[in-house]
Amino acid sequence: MSKAIKYYYDFLSQPSRALWIAMKLGKTPFEDCPVALRKQEQLTDEYRSINRFQKVPAIVDGKFQLGESVSIVRYLADKGVFSEQLYPKTLEERARVDEFLEWQHFNVRLVCSLFFRQVWLLPAKGLAPAPKPESVKKLIKDVESNLGLLERLWLEKDFLVGDKLTVADIFGSSEINQMKLCQYNVNEKQFPKVAKWMERVRDATNPYYDEAHSFVYKTSQQAVKAKN
Amino acid sequence: MSKAIKYYYDFLSQPSRALWIAMKLGKTPFEDCPVALRKQEQLTDEYRSINRFQKVPAIVDGKFQLGESVSIVRYLADKGVFSEQLYPKTLEERARVDEFLEWQHFNVRLVCSLFFRQVWLLPAKGLAPAPKPESVKKLIKDVESNLGLLERLWLEKDFLVGDKLTVADIFGSSEINQMKLCQYNVNEKQFPKVAKWMERVRDATNPYYDEAHSFVYKTSQQAVKAKN
Repeated sequence: MSKAIKYYYDFLSQPSRALWIAMKLGKTPFEDCPVALRKQEQLTDEYRSINRFQKVPAIVDGKFQLGESVSIVRYLADKGVFSEQLYPKTLEERARVDEFLEWQHFNVRLVCSLFFRQVWLLPAKGLAPAPKPESVKKLIKDVESNLGLLERLWLEKDFLVGDKLTVADIFGSSEINQMKLCQYNVNEKQFPKVAKWMERVRDATNPYYDEAHSFVYKTSQQAVKAKN
Repeated sequence: MSKAIKYYYDFLSQPSRALWIAMKLGKTPFEDCPVALRKQEQLTDEYRSINRFQKVPAIVDGKFQLGESVSIVRYLADKGVFSEQLYPKTLEERARVDEFLEWQHFNVRLVCSLFFRQVWLLPAKGLAPAPKPESVKKLIKDVESNLGLLERLWLEKDFLVGDKLTVADIFGSSEINQMKLCQYNVNEKQFPKVAKWMERVRDATNPYYDEAHSFVYKTSQQAVKAKN
């Protein structure tokens, strides 16, 4: 029997969580290889020999090493070990999932990560002061302009691509949910479809969704308590 | 016989050029549907009904519409009308091409487009003044830090993925070549592998490469002449 694929990840990374949830839900067998970003383990020489980009997630399959979450999804699918429901085989459905996975980079991911980085990550690490209110406003404006696109262009049905959950939903929602660390929750009145879709994705992927987001939930609640 | 796939594009768009070169070189049959960005044709209602993102490139295949260049490559490959040499079928080779296509978004593409936008596009359209020298310096620094990654992490062999040209090379090089409009050329001494690779990609893809870049070449030379 061939050895299991090694999965290198950290739950503080959005694509790491998304891929972990998708693999758990879709029963892709893998060996757990956590990389603690808080200890900068991704910057060690040892990890560089696993992923030259020094980022998570990454996989090692025998002698083959691969980075970039979206390309990992495709590799696993081509190898036949990724759920066909989550990454469909039908030509047009797969293309639509691919279209989202490409589109999200410069839309959802770019703005959500920037907001997360400036408002939570850098201040929490002591690498930058908390941004000024006007900068936070600008970051939120950019996030919301993209949530608006999601609402208008992607959510005609229950999920991003039709009536069923796919890996597109897991990737998109993982980016958005992380903003809870910045005390940002999607406003149900402003973005009703996005808010309902986020709940639907959580329901369809639990218990893995909550497990992968436990750090996000715990830390964002602690921040609320500390303020009160 | 089924109708040809309609290809909507403009040579001012990096991914439009890349996909056009790859389709021409790989003999993918398509119907030419230029969309003049300079006339803002991408913002018309007519074009919105073709690509809801109102961006180029896009394809229409019968009743199916698709945006996002990288997902178009995969759709065409899955349909069997994209060159297997340019987008290999072998599991590991395809994964490495995919890894580059994902990696380039937040590396090559993000910094090169920003530089192009701030230094050439917005001033040329009269939408913003030419940036100050210190801003240009910062933009170049970001570009060069990513060219350094390309030099170190990707160019062990003649092309990005082994010894043969793939669609990864065409996409990457199209982003970098566009900076000629900002009078930026890759410095051979600073980035010898990148500079040689750029020439190699041009040679391997001509006459299509030069045809797709004719606007870039012409306009950047005019700018040099105007300065003299």
